[in-house]
Amino acid sequence: MVIFAPMEKGVIYLDNAASTPMDETVVDSMVQCMRTIYGNPSSLHNHGRKARVLIEHARRSIAGCLGVSSAEIFFTSGGTEAGNAVLWGCCKDLGFKNFITSTTEHPAILGTLDALVRHMGARVHFVKVDSLGNIDFEHLDTLLLQYPRSVVSLMHANNETGKLLPVKHVAGICKRYDAVFLSDTVQTIGKFRLDLRQLGLDFAMASAHKFHGPKGVGFMFIKSGHLLQSFLSGGAQERNMRAGTENVCGIVGMARALDVAMQRLDEDCVYIRGLKDEFVRLLSDRIPQIVFNGDINAGSLHTIVNFSLPQWKDPDMLLPGLDIEGICVSAGSACSSGSHKGSHVLEAMGVDPSVSSLRVSFSRYNTIEEIHRFVEVLSNLTCRTSDI
Amino acid sequence: MVIFAPMEKGVIYLDNAASTPMDETVVDSMVQCMRTIYGNPSSLHNHGRKARVLIEHARRSIAGCLGVSSAEIFFTSGGTEAGNAVLWGCCKDLGFKNFITSTTEHPAILGTLDALVRHMGARVHFVKVDSLGNIDFEHLDTLLLQYPRSVVSLMHANNETGKLLPVKHVAGICKRYDAVFLSDTVQTIGKFRLDLRQLGLDFAMASAHKFHGPKGVGFMFIKSGHLLQSFLSGGAQERNMRAGTENVCGIVGMARALDVAMQRLDEDCVYIRGLKDEFVRLLSDRIPQIVFNGDINAGSLHTIVNFSLPQWKDPDMLLPGLDIEGICVSAGSACSSGSHKGSHVLEAMGVDPSVSSLRVSFSRYNTIEEIHRFVEVLSNLTCRTSDI
Repeated sequence: MVIFAPMEKGVIYLDNAASTPMDETVVDSMVQCMRTIYGNPSSLHNHGRKARVLIEHARRSIAGCLGVSSAEIFFTSGGTEAGNAVLWGCCKDLGFKNFITSTTEHPAILGTLDALVRHMGARVHFVKVDSLGNIDFEHLDTLLLQYPRSVVSLMHANNETGKLLPVKHVAGICKRYDAVFLSDTVQTIGKFRLDLRQLGLDFAMASAHKFHGPKGVGFMFIKSGHLLQSFLSGGAQERNMRAGTENVCGIVGMARALDVAMQRLDEDCVYIRGLKDEFVRLLSDRIPQIVFNGDINAGSLHTIVNFSLPQWKDPDMLLPGLDIEGICVSAGSACSSGSHKGSHVLEAMGVDPSVSSLRVSFSRYNTIEEIHRFVEVLSNLTCRTSDI
Repeated sequence: MVIFAPMEKGVIYLDNAASTPMDETVVDSMVQCMRTIYGNPSSLHNHGRKARVLIEHARRSIAGCLGVSSAEIFFTSGGTEAGNAVLWGCCKDLGFKNFITSTTEHPAILGTLDALVRHMGARVHFVKVDSLGNIDFEHLDTLLLQYPRSVVSLMHANNETGKLLPVKHVAGICKRYDAVFLSDTVQTIGKFRLDLRQLGLDFAMASAHKFHGPKGVGFMFIKSGHLLQSFLSGGAQERNMRAGTENVCGIVGMARALDVAMQRLDEDCVYIRGLKDEFVRLLSDRIPQIVFNGDINAGSLHTIVNFSLPQWKDPDMLLPGLDIEGICVSAGSACSSGSHKGSHVLEAMGVDPSVSSLRVSFSRYNTIEEIHRFVEVLSNLTCRTSDI
């Protein structure tokens, strides 16, 4: 494994659920684009057409990776905009007023629903979640029985715990009640071979920087037939679905990043799962008091581990302590990884908020040596604390 | 003048109001960023802080170029998002229900206002525009007398005709009526030395790709004291004003592009004004029937010329004819430059929609030889048409 990004000596980056280093070929494709493609894709002339062709190639490539039609992929500035656009569109254009979600969702979903409640008269219903982060399907059924024509928004993999949702099962439940289903797939696109159509999703979303692409670009999948209108007004771009000059080079980079991710998917999955397993094994061995949050086995994403350290009494000092040792990980918090504030996800799962928790997230650029070093540092830090 | 972007032999790019080639030092700064900075700026660790520092440097640099405080600059995915965010914010967060604008505004404004009418019960009042694109200030006064606490949205330079608005004068009128003033400054940021505070603006907006920066990034200026809430929900980024992981490298590139533009502003203004003057002189000389749209002199942006060719009877064939000759210009249409559909701006100014019109827009990468060649091609094309 070659670490591409010139990391500082001794720095170990284990916060890949927050953002990932860019793949070298992605950077190359974007540099080529930045140096040669400058027309506005809406322009009909030579330079405009060149930009347009690149965008449409990217769209076809991404659609091909996800088993959907090009016409179902719409480029955005990232996952957050995609989530906002889909939920606002469901409310203002499709007339949905009831939204079913869980308290463990990403703030891009929860914050948008809150805005819809305040400004559009939407109503939000929360499905129960257990201590492992499992959605209570019986409760979902009950809620859908009560509010049959709802939007169900449940994420594919939780960004803090990695807990996976059986999306196909949920899609089946939604179908029975004429509900539409948005799954926040930001953490899973590029991590699995996903066939969004076969999974039964109505809407999905992605951010390129979560799979070694650039920041500031993402996309939404909108199943054909759902006639949403543009969330951003002011231009006919993206077939009237997203106004604003397209981030051409970002789109090119994102398509390249997804293509690379899919090409090396099996190899990377095995490699990263190996890192995670070793990490969990070592950690359990060195710090017996450790408590893993969520489901760390098959029901969880291979890139994320979340755990609490009951003996660590000062949550505010854990991250800085690790940072001094050159280790980049995050606290439980989602939107502001590394932030000190308590995690709404762990709270929803019933984890004691006074206990220090960490999210560790891997990528193909991490090495087994980094895992060993991190466990050593962490166990030394916690031992020191126990002595106090 | 060195043409940086490797243009195809014989291709003349005169569509810089649609998008501009990237400055080479901008590309360099972004490549450096893409290769070394990959933390999420919200992360508190080493890699997150590095990204955060770059963003805040960029913010300070941009604020410094525009005479405002860093705390008044908020990064977005471009001018369109900025316009949407400001107008939605004025309506949903500041409680404004009346909006005064003109029919010559960019679709990012007109489309957003239309959405606010449909979904938020907003009312839009159009101020009169004359045949040169001048705003009727007496009418503005009358409208403000009737709807005193309004949002006035009038662009600094029209993106189709280059017509300039005396923003300071308009700001003075707005102030008298307790109205707030958004000016779409997408075409003028980087083209003038602007002091947004001294001009009296409440809100302004920019797109980096209009001043040799990257596509997919822009910013909004929100004068301190205007307590808008985030348009995109789901994260505390941009001091709770714009959720979503920041486009770090795009922001770095945009700040660099604006810095370069400001450093070479006087030189570029003289140079581009020279190109425009020569173009207008030559064109008037070679095609006497030509009609310039708007005010082509001091009241207009040095980068844009708009004109009609009354003798050209087939508007649908003019752009393709020029394209075949390797010349990239646009028809009057704003959001989709190069599109065949009629221009709402020219229509508002009373220009006959059956007549062919062109927008030609220059940048520092254009040369006097390109101007000569374009005029020659255009006069040959129109002569041939006159013969038919």
